[in-house]
Amino acid sequence: MNNLAVTVYKIGGGIIDDAAELGKFLELLAQTTGPKILVHGGGKGASAMMRELGLTPQLVNGRRVTDAAALDIVVMFYAGKTNKGVVANLQRLGINALGLSGADGNVIQGVKRPVKEVDYGFVGDLTAGSVNKNLLHNLLQAGLTPVLCPIIHDGRGQLLNTNADTIASAVAVALAPEADVTLHYCFEKNGVLRDVNDDNSVIPEINSASYAELKVQGIIADGMLPKLENAFAALNQGVSRVIIGHALHINSDLRTILCLN
Amino acid sequence: MNNLAVTVYKIGGGIIDDAAELGKFLELLAQTTGPKILVHGGGKGASAMMRELGLTPQLVNGRRVTDAAALDIVVMFYAGKTNKGVVANLQRLGINALGLSGADGNVIQGVKRPVKEVDYGFVGDLTAGSVNKNLLHNLLQAGLTPVLCPIIHDGRGQLLNTNADTIASAVAVALAPEADVTLHYCFEKNGVLRDVNDDNSVIPEINSASYAELKVQGIIADGMLPKLENAFAALNQGVSRVIIGHALHINSDLRTILCLN
Repeated sequence: MNNLAVTVYKIGGGIIDDAAELGKFLELLAQTTGPKILVHGGGKGASAMMRELGLTPQLVNGRRVTDAAALDIVVMFYAGKTNKGVVANLQRLGINALGLSGADGNVIQGVKRPVKEVDYGFVGDLTAGSVNKNLLHNLLQAGLTPVLCPIIHDGRGQLLNTNADTIASAVAVALAPEADVTLHYCFEKNGVLRDVNDDNSVIPEINSASYAELKVQGIIADGMLPKLENAFAALNQGVSRVIIGHALHINSDLRTILCLN
Repeated sequence: MNNLAVTVYKIGGGIIDDAAELGKFLELLAQTTGPKILVHGGGKGASAMMRELGLTPQLVNGRRVTDAAALDIVVMFYAGKTNKGVVANLQRLGINALGLSGADGNVIQGVKRPVKEVDYGFVGDLTAGSVNKNLLHNLLQAGLTPVLCPIIHDGRGQLLNTNADTIASAVAVALAPEADVTLHYCFEKNGVLRDVNDDNSVIPEINSASYAELKVQGIIADGMLPKLENAFAALNQGVSRVIIGHALHINSDLRTILCLN
């Protein structure tokens, strides 16, 4: 049915900020087979540079308020330093990576977040419909590995800061009608844990039924809840499976696989 | 013979540093027809940011000495801020631009400049053989406009700072065997001037024979000499024509066209 199998990997700020860990992750990624897309987050470097330049990073509800000066810095950091560093490293490892902001090839065109209680500034919202899946398909078919940074554009010349988790799930959902898509969230835990204090209590598989149970039992709560809600939303929109696991175990069985059934 | 006609436009630091001029140039570029590639230089922004961060930009013979800290900044500036700003603006104007450093899709793999009298640091050298012309052809065939910044890589994970003129001529020469290539240098003069103090003294056409004469007469000298030497080197390697003219007159007849015959 879907002859193309694609994995969308997402790495966050924690690993971006640690050059040694990032290097190890990229080596593991280079060992994976099949077409893939890497989506990376921002990390703390942009905030550090803002402070060095005398600017004050502002966060509301964990989201960066991005004024024009902050946007300049995050574009430089995410689309420049981080993205090109990752791409050059993947090239070294034999992966033909190609870095993209959302403006490049119009791969993700979103909208500036409407001002409600908070004015987040130049922050972008996007959905699966914002993704130029034809370009991604063409790049994958050509043997390239797209590397997406969390900067998109509005089609009217404005770059916008956004969130790597959102990009990863939007890309996965956008590709799902024509491909067997795995969405792989790489973070600093071994997976969804039965006991948050026991790294070895990874739940190997969760489906819709067991997910409902785990919620009732209170085993899935707090920070893990929105993550899994987003994962099941992606599954409900056609993504074949979501994997949640440690960035340094992407090729091991130590991880949680989420499916609908 | 060559069914694809491609124009490689090069813009330098002068226009990059002037947002209003850059905007005008991009509007003119959007009015040009046919497949095109834009190569942009760096501009003074990177040096200004270095000073703000307490670093001292170093130039030897007009070339930046690029240590690790300077490389970080130029990658952020050229591949991040400038490249993505240009791409987002072209998208606004209906041009499906896609920004690239040399690492992206391995489009330009060069070598770190050998240390002789001067150690230029992380500066890259490249030739037409460094250019992945297949990727550029594929992007052009897909209706995309590649936008190249002056950052390349060495294939071993190292990004390198380089020169936009060199990239433009290497790309033009690399594409020449399979396309009718025009290399268009956009700068702040109306073309090659017969009288350096008279902007209206543009020489409309120069071929190998008249070039030799103009040199003997001392009409081409100083700063224009290396520019034209490079132009004729590109022509001798298969580029069909080189245009030298003002960035804000790219669609007018006010310019110098250089051909072999």
